[in-house]
Amino acid sequence: MTTRRVIALLTDFGLADPYVAAMKGVILSVTPRVSIVDITHEVRPQAVEQGAFLLEMALPYFPPGTVFVAVVDPGVGTARRPLALAGPGGLFVGPDNGLLSPALPEKTREAVVGETTAAVPLPSGYRAVVLADERFFRHPVSATFHGRDIFSPVAAHLAAGVAIDELGPATDWLLALPPFRARRQEDGSLLGRVVHIDRFGNLVTDVRRADIPGQRLTVEVAGRRVPGLARTYAEARGLCAIIGSAGYLEIALPNGSAQRELGVEIGARAIVRPL
Amino acid sequence: MTTRRVIALLTDFGLADPYVAAMKGVILSVTPRVSIVDITHEVRPQAVEQGAFLLEMALPYFPPGTVFVAVVDPGVGTARRPLALAGPGGLFVGPDNGLLSPALPEKTREAVVGETTAAVPLPSGYRAVVLADERFFRHPVSATFHGRDIFSPVAAHLAAGVAIDELGPATDWLLALPPFRARRQEDGSLLGRVVHIDRFGNLVTDVRRADIPGQRLTVEVAGRRVPGLARTYAEARGLCAIIGSAGYLEIALPNGSAQRELGVEIGARAIVRPL
Amino acid sequence: MTTRRVIALLTDFGLADPYVAAMKGVILSVTPRVSIVDITHEVRPQAVEQGAFLLEMALPYFPPGTVFVAVVDPGVGTARRPLALAGPGGLFVGPDNGLLSPALPEKTREAVVGETTAAVPLPSGYRAVVLADERFFRHPVSATFHGRDIFSPVAAHLAAGVAIDELGPATDWLLALPPFRARRQEDGSLLGRVVHIDRFGNLVTDVRRADIPGQRLTVEVAGRRVPGLARTYAEARGLCAIIGSAGYLEIALPNGSAQRELGVEIGARAIVRPL
Repeated sequence: MTTRRVIALLTDFGLADPYVAAMKGVILSVTPRVSIVDITHEVRPQAVEQGAFLLEMALPYFPPGTVFVAVVDPGVGTARRPLALAGPGGLFVGPDNGLLSPALPEKTREAVVGETTAAVPLPSGYRAVVLADERFFRHPVSATFHGRDIFSPVAAHLAAGVAIDELGPATDWLLALPPFRARRQEDGSLLGRVVHIDRFGNLVTDVRRADIPGQRLTVEVAGRRVPGLARTYAEARGLCAIIGSAGYLEIALPNGSAQRELGVEIGARAIVRPL
Repeated sequence: MTTRRVIALLTDFGLADPYVAAMKGVILSVTPRVSIVDITHEVRPQAVEQGAFLLEMALPYFPPGTVFVAVVDPGVGTARRPLALAGPGGLFVGPDNGLLSPALPEKTREAVVGETTAAVPLPSGYRAVVLADERFFRHPVSATFHGRDIFSPVAAHLAAGVAIDELGPATDWLLALPPFRARRQEDGSLLGRVVHIDRFGNLVTDVRRADIPGQRLTVEVAGRRVPGLARTYAEARGLCAIIGSAGYLEIALPNGSAQRELGVEIGARAIVRPL
Repeated sequence: MTTRRVIALLTDFGLADPYVAAMKGVILSVTPRVSIVDITHEVRPQAVEQGAFLLEMALPYFPPGTVFVAVVDPGVGTARRPLALAGPGGLFVGPDNGLLSPALPEKTREAVVGETTAAVPLPSGYRAVVLADERFFRHPVSATFHGRDIFSPVAAHLAAGVAIDELGPATDWLLALPPFRARRQEDGSLLGRVVHIDRFGNLVTDVRRADIPGQRLTVEVAGRRVPGLARTYAEARGLCAIIGSAGYLEIALPNGSAQRELGVEIGARAIVRPL
């Protein structure tokens, strides 16, 4: 086989410190025959839900067989389980804290109520194992950096052809976040949340294109009513609602920052009403 | 053929969001046999001219046959044309808004007067097409992210050996920016502009080494007279003018930031006078 | 030979400017058969000691034969020597200003007294040359960017199989920094320093795990007494001392920033006392 597997990395480590480089060095020490791609390393520190959302945004664009390594891991060194998961979307390696939720079908995640994680049964067609076989770890294993000592070498071994079942005992459940999706309220409006703020200051919400009641609507956020939908940033005049490239409703301010204009943070409510 | 082609990316997307990663995933889905290099993703949002300047700074250092994907695209989703361009400097893919100007010979760009773009005829030895054949796009094509859905997959197909003429109808013109070059004034001075500010706070101007009247000069910027030329940062004492590594005049403050010291922004004037 | 060599880059250039991209373009122009990994480009401008520390943190995780290119080079264009160094840890290319110290055994560095560099003899088993053969440079060689014109092409030639002795005349000494290690004081305490501050605001000191008097201790920093050692970030309550993943003592504030809490900078003292 001459094609290289892709290993895609998502962490909250940033790029100023040598932590991501150490992960890449460990991967390339196991196998040089991979292409390593950074999804992002700018997840806010320990923000598992934002990390999961960014993973969900990037996931559909990677080739089949990609190994995703996701490390936003406030529980590193505690009893939280290190997992590998194989499904139709690829292979996933990371902590069992909800971060790997985008690997799961939406139907499975619908069983989770509220905004925190809950255990869900592994759906059919998936395979999950608890990482336990230390032959596939880097030694010594530190208590604070499983991204380097467990997740990266395991991902490299998977990319090099090791079968997931060799990595440890199978498990039939994992922790999942609810789907990124706004809730329909009694008055017909949609109650969404800002789940990410991008470089342009666009507020990315969990309101999906498919749930939106039509092209003419308003979004209430931070006490302001924002009109929508614009089709392109160029046609918008001032604050506008638009469907972003990942299929989620965004609040944007062309040639400015919606975040600065509205003074909101991740977690802010966004209520969508048809006009 | 066993060597991989290089695909070099320049955008204003930043690295905190998963947009660049989506482009890379799309490229690697078309062909894994490429080396992807980031030129920069920190062009100021929608700053086409700065993007073109940074592309021009990086261009000469890449191997022949490199495919450059440049996306600073305020007009995405409007009538602005998506282009591919083949010339002596490599292959270029991006919006037709002036960003691809560094691909053109200086002589062609001299026809543009003022600081904005104008249509120029395609010089001989070049080939340009309007991207139209949707077989080479990613689907569905979003209205806001042609970097992912048009430019990246087209670049990957070019790197994989698809001929540029397969991508769409030929065109014999494109929009270009004037050359990055200071103007000579009646009193013999050179009127230049700050076109980029680097990480060290150095003010990079459009004054080229070849246009400079000698080694002894002053640069007037923000009402201050800065002496020059220093040969190295180490020999400078305080604010100094120096020829930077890309061959343009820079104002630098060793162990400090000329930007902070002078309080200037991109676009500021810099007047060079011989001593 | 079908495996690619790894070239790992560390600079103070940042990623907003096209300088690192130019280095990568030059490398790929010499040989496409390499995997380029960024260690970090966010070393503080001209902070040679911090650069050396970050190189030391990343070094052990890279595969044998990796070529490290390190460029924090305030003396570029002056008489400081450009070096290549081969040792058990890999191949190293960069300026002779102490930055390459992590390539050397600790025993060699112990000869350096104080906090600045001194010349040390090349230990046995090492090979060093002054870069002089211009066939391996990129031309013209600028006075301000040897990272692009000397160090990158030389590294690429090394990765492509050129022998180190072809690059220039051998030398039997180089400049080194003292080891990153706290000093034991007369009262039994350890006097350390903050040598890096990471993305989470953790203060990384030069106090090594092996030098620490036991699990129960306090660290005095900025007039505060911080208790330790915590085993994981999750078990800590407030400011804590912990052994970081690179084996050095860190001051951390889980869910916060120790740097902001304590208001300290690189260079601050940290005094470790057993309880």
